[in-house]
Amino acid sequence: MRIEMTEPAYVAVDWGTSSFRLWLIDRAGEVLAERRSDEGMVAAAKAGFAAVLQSHLAAVEAPDHLPVLVCGMAGARTGWVEAGYVDTPAPLSAVPKQAARVPGEARDIRILPGIAQRDPRTPDVMRGEETQLLGALGLDAAGEALVCMPGTHSKWVRVKDGTVERFSTFMTGELFSVVSRETILSLAVAGAEDTEDVASFQAAVKAAYEAPAFAANFLFGARSRQLLFGGTPAAARETLSGTLIGVELAAGLSGAMPETGIALIASGRLAMLYRLAFDALSVTVKPVDADEAVRRGLSMAAAAIWTK
Amino acid sequence: MRIEMTEPAYVAVDWGTSSFRLWLIDRAGEVLAERRSDEGMVAAAKAGFAAVLQSHLAAVEAPDHLPVLVCGMAGARTGWVEAGYVDTPAPLSAVPKQAARVPGEARDIRILPGIAQRDPRTPDVMRGEETQLLGALGLDAAGEALVCMPGTHSKWVRVKDGTVERFSTFMTGELFSVVSRETILSLAVAGAEDTEDVASFQAAVKAAYEAPAFAANFLFGARSRQLLFGGTPAAARETLSGTLIGVELAAGLSGAMPETGIALIASGRLAMLYRLAFDALSVTVKPVDADEAVRRGLSMAAAAIWTK
Repeated sequence: MRIEMTEPAYVAVDWGTSSFRLWLIDRAGEVLAERRSDEGMVAAAKAGFAAVLQSHLAAVEAPDHLPVLVCGMAGARTGWVEAGYVDTPAPLSAVPKQAARVPGEARDIRILPGIAQRDPRTPDVMRGEETQLLGALGLDAAGEALVCMPGTHSKWVRVKDGTVERFSTFMTGELFSVVSRETILSLAVAGAEDTEDVASFQAAVKAAYEAPAFAANFLFGARSRQLLFGGTPAAARETLSGTLIGVELAAGLSGAMPETGIALIASGRLAMLYRLAFDALSVTVKPVDADEAVRRGLSMAAAAIWTK
Repeated sequence: MRIEMTEPAYVAVDWGTSSFRLWLIDRAGEVLAERRSDEGMVAAAKAGFAAVLQSHLAAVEAPDHLPVLVCGMAGARTGWVEAGYVDTPAPLSAVPKQAARVPGEARDIRILPGIAQRDPRTPDVMRGEETQLLGALGLDAAGEALVCMPGTHSKWVRVKDGTVERFSTFMTGELFSVVSRETILSLAVAGAEDTEDVASFQAAVKAAYEAPAFAANFLFGARSRQLLFGGTPAAARETLSGTLIGVELAAGLSGAMPETGIALIASGRLAMLYRLAFDALSVTVKPVDADEAVRRGLSMAAAAIWTK
């Protein structure tokens, strides 16, 4: 009996602000090996991007000639090599075409560009999410889509016939982080374990969705409620989380709804939270795993770049 | 010629989270001496409240028998002596009546209570602002008033015939502080001097007032605008400030407007910012100086307590 070894065709890297993921992929798009680390852009800017990448390539025994495709913040001005932006209306098919080659490297290493919305009234940028969109929707998806991509800086994106028409960033995740750790509300959530309080979360989502202007009041209410009525740190934390997500949903759902509904591209705990939030508003979403989407997007882009 | 020395009648103290102010006041309500320091509740909790107060009393040569009236966070559970709350609907005349005497002190030292809104749906607390309200409106003001009190934790208060009926806290000031210092937006505002950018501020107020759900998007826009179009740190800072204040105004102005209009109790830079914000929305307000209001409120309460 003979075991057939598939040969690696390229390396895909999702290089974010605080995380690094690498996959060794064969011609059929199958993952042969995977690496995850916290050597994101910030850490790599100190250690050296080339050195960090090389250590992971060595760990998966990637041959010297194997090309590498990178997406994410490594392509920012403050990253490895600035990969620029595709401007809206941005055909997703333009993303692989505008990949920036890393100079001075024998290996063919390219970084995908982000997408910029150069509208003076609603300027916005994404970097990394364009690759998830590619993976979730494909290069030439027909029809309209409204896509919610939760995160530190959540994106809501309108895509029509494979072109990103408009998008909005909401710094929901980062607000939750600083509000729960750096304000007086840190007292209210102190000691909150990983126990969930779905009722508090969904009630907060609904309240903030219905009266978004009161968000800063609902946040403070988590503390007042504890002072006057008691209540667990978990309930307070879910109130903060639900309030901030509820406001985001009020904005994201305020436009026209496409016939195809809403795609939710997320993973892990965030995917669970946003599904609960949409449920609280009786809005149906089509879930897409964010990890899978980014890997699939990198594969599509690699095929477009290297399969001529 | 003989100079008539007026005798001090009592000492008034506004003891907040991060600031301490003391006035030596005569029978006619005139200020004979004043002290300001940053020995707020947090600092005093370490140094000892009695010691901090005594050092300032000694500095103004306050006689041993002179009574002291305190308002603010010194009366919180985590302060000197817990002074409790008057519950809404809270007659302002009940505030001096429920003052808590500091035990174990030869001198008559009393701390004014806060006001609590024990509504499970909209729980809220204030401590210090009740004294400003007393000073601004008087013990038995007839008619309705809507009062905006900007700050770290801004309060919007509805008062009818001398009774606080409802109020809402918005953590606008604290949000501005953490958003501009602890998030990615700190990069956008870095180096912003004290130069003003009134146009950016008022544009942000209007935008957030009109679409409060987009606040977290407008905040991020301050960074995207700089990345794509340049722009000064001052413009970015005013956009953050205007966005957060605009959302607060959207909530505060959402209810019925009393015939007497809106009173704005504020001092210094905050008073200026909120006046510009109301101006941007063409809303007229009646300005009241917050420093004067708290001193007048303490005087009214002292008169009610010690002038039997």
